[in-house]
Amino acid sequence: MTRISLRDVGPRDGLQAASAFLPTEKKIEWFRLAAAAGVPDIEVTSFSSPRLLPQFADAPEVLPAAMAMGGFGVSALIPNRKGAERGFALKAPKLNYVVSASNAHSLSNVGRSTADAVGEFGEIVRLRDHLGVTTELSVGIATSFGCSIAGRVPESDVLRIAEELLSLGAQEISLADTVGYANPRQVARLVKAVMGLAGDVPLLCHFHDTRGLGLANAAAAIDQGVTRLDASLGGLGGCPFAPGATGNINLEDTVFLVHEMGFETGIDLEALIDVRRSVQSWLPGESFTGAVAKAGLPLRKAA
Amino acid sequence: MTRISLRDVGPRDGLQAASAFLPTEKKIEWFRLAAAAGVPDIEVTSFSSPRLLPQFADAPEVLPAAMAMGGFGVSALIPNRKGAERGFALKAPKLNYVVSASNAHSLSNVGRSTADAVGEFGEIVRLRDHLGVTTELSVGIATSFGCSIAGRVPESDVLRIAEELLSLGAQEISLADTVGYANPRQVARLVKAVMGLAGDVPLLCHFHDTRGLGLANAAAAIDQGVTRLDASLGGLGGCPFAPGATGNINLEDTVFLVHEMGFETGIDLEALIDVRRSVQSWLPGESFTGAVAKAGLPLRKAA
Repeated sequence: MTRISLRDVGPRDGLQAASAFLPTEKKIEWFRLAAAAGVPDIEVTSFSSPRLLPQFADAPEVLPAAMAMGGFGVSALIPNRKGAERGFALKAPKLNYVVSASNAHSLSNVGRSTADAVGEFGEIVRLRDHLGVTTELSVGIATSFGCSIAGRVPESDVLRIAEELLSLGAQEISLADTVGYANPRQVARLVKAVMGLAGDVPLLCHFHDTRGLGLANAAAAIDQGVTRLDASLGGLGGCPFAPGATGNINLEDTVFLVHEMGFETGIDLEALIDVRRSVQSWLPGESFTGAVAKAGLPLRKAA
Repeated sequence: MTRISLRDVGPRDGLQAASAFLPTEKKIEWFRLAAAAGVPDIEVTSFSSPRLLPQFADAPEVLPAAMAMGGFGVSALIPNRKGAERGFALKAPKLNYVVSASNAHSLSNVGRSTADAVGEFGEIVRLRDHLGVTTELSVGIATSFGCSIAGRVPESDVLRIAEELLSLGAQEISLADTVGYANPRQVARLVKAVMGLAGDVPLLCHFHDTRGLGLANAAAAIDQGVTRLDASLGGLGGCPFAPGATGNINLEDTVFLVHEMGFETGIDLEALIDVRRSVQSWLPGESFTGAVAKAGLPLRKAA
C-alpha cells in the first residue's frame, strides 16, 4: 500500500500566528505526543528573527530537543541565509527555505524580489557545502496558485522558478497555496508539470483551506502521485491575509481523507485527535478547525 | 462551457433541522433573493407530516408561491405516498422521494424496509400516471456511501436499488452521502457505475461535509461528469447523526469550487453571499458554515 507522508506544520506555521508564546516544554511535549500517534514528520520551529517572531526565540532549544527525540523527521523553516547559518550550526537534518512565485508578494512580505530570494538559495547551498554539513535543503514556492496582491500567478513563472531552484540544488520542492486560491484542476495541472521537471526530486504540497477547497486540492495532488503533504494539527494558524479565515488544511481531516482514499500514513487517527485535545488545552486563545474531531470516525463494521 | 446545475436544499434539508419556524413570507423571500442571484434550482419544502416536522406545515402555501414566482426549478421532498398525493394535488413540477440503501437505516429512520420503500415508489409512479399530472419524479438513495448504523454499504446494494428505481420510472437518481462517509475515490467508482446503469436518466449528487470531505467528493463527482449537485445556503442544517457537526456542503463554497474548476453555474457568488447574510439574519439561532463568505473572493487581476 502506498504511503502518503504527512507533515505537521502546526508547531511552525500554526504557532507563527498564535497570540501567546507556547512554552518550550509544551512544544517538545507536542512532538512527543504526535510522534507517539505516528506522525512521521514535523516542522518543529523557524529560524526567523526572534525580534520579529518571538514565538520562535526558543528555536535553538527546540530543534536539538526534537532531533534527540527520534522517531520522526525533523525540519525547520529558514527565511534567509542568516536562519540557514543558525540551522547549520545545530546540524539540522532538514531546512525549509521559501521563495514567493509572486514578485509583488515577495517584495511586500520579505522586502526583496523573487529573483533575489532565488539567488539567496544558491548562497545557502554553497554555505552548506562549504561547512560540510549534511542538512537536506527543501524549498517552498509560496503563492504558487495565486497571490492576494498580484492576483493570478502564471504557471510559467512557477515552472521557471522550480527549474532554477532544482538547478541550484533543491532536494525537495514544495508548492504552497499561501492564500487559498488553488482549485483541484489547477493543482492537477501544476503538479504534473512540476513533477515533469523535478525527476527524482520529491514534490510536496502545502495547501490552505481559506476558501474551503483545501482537501479537494489535496485529493487532486494525491491523484497525480504526490506523496508528501503539509497540514496543521487542529488547522492551527489561521490566515494572515484574511482575518478570521482558515489557514493550513487540518491534519486530522487530511489523515481521514488519505486513509479513506486507500493509502496509509502510519498515523493513528484516534490518538491524533487526543493530541489535538492536549495542544488545544495549551492554547486557549486559538481557534481550532476540523470536521473529524467534531463528528467522530465512521462506523467500520460491514453491512 | 459546461454548466453545473446547483440546487439549494437549504429551505428543505437546512430548515428541517432548524429550531425555530421560519415564517412563510421569509421562505418565499429566500427564493426571491436566491433566484435573483441566479440559483437555478431550489428544494422549497417537504410534504412531511406537519405533526412530525412543523417547519413544513406551510408546504401547501410555499410550493404554489415558488411555482408562481418562476425563474428557477422548483422541487419538494416527499417521504411517502401520502406526501406524493399532496404534491400531485398542487401539480408540483418535481418531487423528490428517498429510499435508504441501508436497510437498518431505513428501518430506524422511517420504520420500513428498503424493499418496502422501493415498492412504495412504484405506487407513487402509478398514482401520478393515474392522476395524469406531469410531475417529474426523482429518487434519492440515502446512505449510498455508508451508514452510521450498518457501517459499510456494499456498492452492489446501491446499484441494485438504482436499477429497481430506474425500472420503476425514476426520472433522476440522486446519490446521497447522508452521514458524511464518502471519499473521492469511492465517489468516482460509484458515480461511474450508476451512470453506466442510468443511461439518459440524470444523476445528482448530494454530499454532506460531516467529516470534511464534502467538496473533495463534489470535485470527484464533477470529474466523472456529474452536472447536478445539491448544497445548502450557509451550510444550514447540521448533521442529525453527529450533534454539532456539519451537514450539507455549503452552497457558496460549492459555487466557488465549480467556477474555479472552469464550469458555469449561472450564480453571482457575491450576490449569493448577500442572500446568505439575509437568511442568516432571519435565523439567529442557527450555525452557518462556509469559507468563502468569511475569506472573500480571490483577487482576479492578472499577474
